[in-house]
Amino acid sequence: MRNFSDTLVRKIAELDNPTVLGLDPKLDYIPQFIKDHAESIFPDEPQKSTAKALWLFNKALIDATYDIVPAVKVQFAYYEMYGVEALKSLALTVRYAQKKGMVVIADAKRNDIGATSEAYAKSIIGATELLMDQRTQVYGADAVTVNAYLGIDGVKPFLTNCKEYGRGIFCLVKTSNPSSSDFQELELADGRKVFEAVADKVNEWGMDYIGEEGFSSVGAVVGATFPEEAVALRKRLPHAFILVPGYGAQGAGADEAVASFTEDGKGSIVNASRSLMCAWMKREELKPEDFAKATRAEAIEMRDALKAALINRKYI
Amino acid sequence: MRNFSDTLVRKIAELDNPTVLGLDPKLDYIPQFIKDHAESIFPDEPQKSTAKALWLFNKALIDATYDIVPAVKVQFAYYEMYGVEALKSLALTVRYAQKKGMVVIADAKRNDIGATSEAYAKSIIGATELLMDQRTQVYGADAVTVNAYLGIDGVKPFLTNCKEYGRGIFCLVKTSNPSSSDFQELELADGRKVFEAVADKVNEWGMDYIGEEGFSSVGAVVGATFPEEAVALRKRLPHAFILVPGYGAQGAGADEAVASFTEDGKGSIVNASRSLMCAWMKREELKPEDFAKATRAEAIEMRDALKAALINRKYI
Repeated sequence: MRNFSDTLVRKIAELDNPTVLGLDPKLDYIPQFIKDHAESIFPDEPQKSTAKALWLFNKALIDATYDIVPAVKVQFAYYEMYGVEALKSLALTVRYAQKKGMVVIADAKRNDIGATSEAYAKSIIGATELLMDQRTQVYGADAVTVNAYLGIDGVKPFLTNCKEYGRGIFCLVKTSNPSSSDFQELELADGRKVFEAVADKVNEWGMDYIGEEGFSSVGAVVGATFPEEAVALRKRLPHAFILVPGYGAQGAGADEAVASFTEDGKGSIVNASRSLMCAWMKREELKPEDFAKATRAEAIEMRDALKAALINRKYI
Repeated sequence: MRNFSDTLVRKIAELDNPTVLGLDPKLDYIPQFIKDHAESIFPDEPQKSTAKALWLFNKALIDATYDIVPAVKVQFAYYEMYGVEALKSLALTVRYAQKKGMVVIADAKRNDIGATSEAYAKSIIGATELLMDQRTQVYGADAVTVNAYLGIDGVKPFLTNCKEYGRGIFCLVKTSNPSSSDFQELELADGRKVFEAVADKVNEWGMDYIGEEGFSSVGAVVGATFPEEAVALRKRLPHAFILVPGYGAQGAGADEAVASFTEDGKGSIVNASRSLMCAWMKREELKPEDFAKATRAEAIEMRDALKAALINRKYI
């Protein structure tokens, strides 16, 4: 069975680009001509036309970037918001991106007690037994984000599915939002902060999942908005593959985004959602019909900015 | 706008029963004759027949209990596991239970940064704008469980939707599983434990959501498996409505389950999923066709056990 982290490390090396394209398709982000087209296909069915618009938008962005961007991150909330039809677009997006050779990270931040976590794990990265002796992979994503507040019994079913299907997880350690300080930065009696205690467990849980490239399929989420913490967390988590949100629209630049990379510039991948999806809104030289070209141009700039930041590390 | 906690308190008083029926319909829990019937309706479509079996099972359990049980808790994982068709059964279950007068708690344990939490809140307790100027309530549940690890910015969009739609949330404070100790029981430098720090924030966040009955629509999840902690948490959270998992199959009895109730026996609601759903498996005097009667009988026993435990409090 392949190891998720090996797949990811090699794909990043192949395209020489540690970027994840975040596909969080709010209707506001989608050009009007796509929405008009989707409405013309399902003129009396707003749920289906909405779902169609999400899919057409995602497909165009994947087509425009799969040869330069190694991975996509689908944010489940933006599909769940638009209803059940939109979840079909989500499943279609996962499969299409994989068909194009991209690694797909399901950003679902799932968590529960063991028996229930197992159901989530089966849904997102594993497989389910249906009636009539049928099996289905509902989403079949390559990896999923997980909230570890319930401890190891809530995480273990994800690990079991990682092993069985060659998948990965990213545990929330230090998130990119301002109020991540509310609980994550509380100081413990032993001197650590809460997020450091989570990191230590993630490190421990990941030991059995280290691949040939030296990274674990049990990864961590560490926001780009806290670069000093990211440098320290890399030392705490020498093997964890790190998913870095917070670049672009959330305020962090390339220097901050690469803070968690290893000394030889590996082991992390930087997500950008709005700044890539909505690139068409700010590039006035392009027509809305060229929205995917705008995303591609922005993705090239992001790749080059990250590479430059990795050469001249500001935080290390 | 109605206040969620008032609705819940009054419904519990009306039926004199602080029980939630957990609807976590794994196929293993569903009698064979229902699965056969569902297969006969969609003979070539395993996803649709599976979804149909879940719905038929849920509907029968609601029909058998709505006059004695005030609320249901739908565990999203068990529907997501069976694919998109099963989510239609979930939405149908929510609406049907509400039509029968039950309060519906969506157990989804959602969490994310603000913009994304907003999408989850819209999906589960609020409403979404679709194309063609249409609005939809995807699930329209009365309340949702929330994981607060990301702090207030991740919780705020849920609060906004609570205010707008008269809904509620239950934040995970102390969960019922053994490894809830991994992080929740870590000791902080100020002497509190992590779950107590979460409780203090939940108390603070809930102050603006207190209803006429004295309880807040910003509630807490506190497992029945930790009764001493539950007694202490009730003092820390004088206004929070508390959702109590862990009764029955997870090991806690009625004495433990009522530990978080106020001195006058209010302010908490106890969930049972497997012990109620699977009651038909252990009542050999009943035929599988009478599975819903078994659940009703078990629910009456549970109600009476909780009421007895509230009269003779073991933990207070």
